Amino acid sequence: MNFPSKLIEQAVAEFEKLPGIGKKTALRLVLYLMKQDVSSVEQFSKSIEKMRKEIRFCKICHNISDHETCSICANPKRNSSLVCVVETIRDVIAIESTNQFNGLYHVLGGVISPMEGIGPDELKIESLVQRCSKGEIKEVIMALNPTIEGDTTIFYISKKLQEMPVRITSIARGVSFGGELEYVDDITLARSIVTRMPYENYIVKNHDG
Amino acid sequence: MNFPSKLIEQAVAEFEKLPGIGKKTALRLVLYLMKQDVSSVEQFSKSIEKMRKEIRFCKICHNISDHETCSICANPKRNSSLVCVVETIRDVIAIESTNQFNGLYHVLGGVISPMEGIGPDELKIESLVQRCSKGEIKEVIMALNPTIEGDTTIFYISKKLQEMPVRITSIARGVSFGGELEYVDDITLARSIVTRMPYENYIVKNHDG
Repeated sequence: MNFPSKLIEQAVAEFEKLPGIGKKTALRLVLYLMKQDVSSVEQFSKSIEKMRKEIRFCKICHNISDHETCSICANPKRNSSLVCVVETIRDVIAIESTNQFNGLYHVLGGVISPMEGIGPDELKIESLVQRCSKGEIKEVIMALNPTIEGDTTIFYISKKLQEMPVRITSIARGVSFGGELEYVDDITLARSIVTRMPYENYIVKNHDG
Repeated sequence: MNFPSKLIEQAVAEFEKLPGIGKKTALRLVLYLMKQDVSSVEQFSKSIEKMRKEIRFCKICHNISDHETCSICANPKRNSSLVCVVETIRDVIAIESTNQFNGLYHVLGGVISPMEGIGPDELKIESLVQRCSKGEIKEVIMALNPTIEGDTTIFYISKKLQEMPVRITSIARGVSFGGELEYVDDITLARSIVTRMPYENYIVKNHDG
């Protein structure tokens, strides 16, 4: 594409660097912003710059935070004996949006993946072990993705925590609500029969969400 | 969605205002930017703000420009006796990208549309008439979209220019290269037979692209 303006060309090049945004979409976004008030474009660019410069990571759970401790860890109403271990911040946001979890989180920052050169030391596993060693945590819920890497990470963490009086659980795996049996993959369907659950649990789940 | 950080929430809200970007995509983009260097995020936000503040419109053709006159109008190598009339800046970029047009442009800023309250006075038609009245322009190529509004606008402009020694043409309409006959709409196919062209033109077009 030939742009009649260097300013537009540079702005398009910057938008193009974002994931999933190609040249045509970038141009559409830039032309949209071009038509907005100077003040709203300023607000757009300022809020992004401010976010990048002022964002911090919670010193306890490594979640994103505006302060030293995130709003979840700092909330006295949350159950601090329950910790949900997740891979990324995105998972925290997804679980928080269900409004069904009242414990705290621990963001690993990834999973153990020798293929990508990510070992246990690259992740926030040691700080999880330290949190658990303080004695307040009674249960650790593993909410990692069901991949080989995720399972390896769960195994590694469970070994690390085996000496401590901490119960290790995993989020339930099975056929999703709204899923049709005939389209469910073999492993999920097979496992959902083997690890079937009491009818009482089914009712509770159906009710809450 | 519940965000654990106000900074993230604000940045997501700003991205969400962009066309075609929903909450999940906005979050993905914000988390991506969060992981980049402060300097590259600064470059991103600065280039957008700079674009919005410094962008100008060419006083001759109303194309976007970094200066008072755009790089196309200011280029002495371009054929100033040929003017292509388009609806938006996007059309200029599309035609420029073909590298097949060496004349100048005139960006109307839209088409006549009584439904949307856009009359001839809202568009840059008067300035086109003035450009043509100076005598240098020999041909005006209409490159508007083939809608009722586009055709109305072409008709209106041709009436305005009928007293002047200017040839008015339209970009060729027909079956697109690569299009399969059986999938072409009736009107295009019927018109492409009625307005069939000499074989020589076909060869030239096929050759150039």
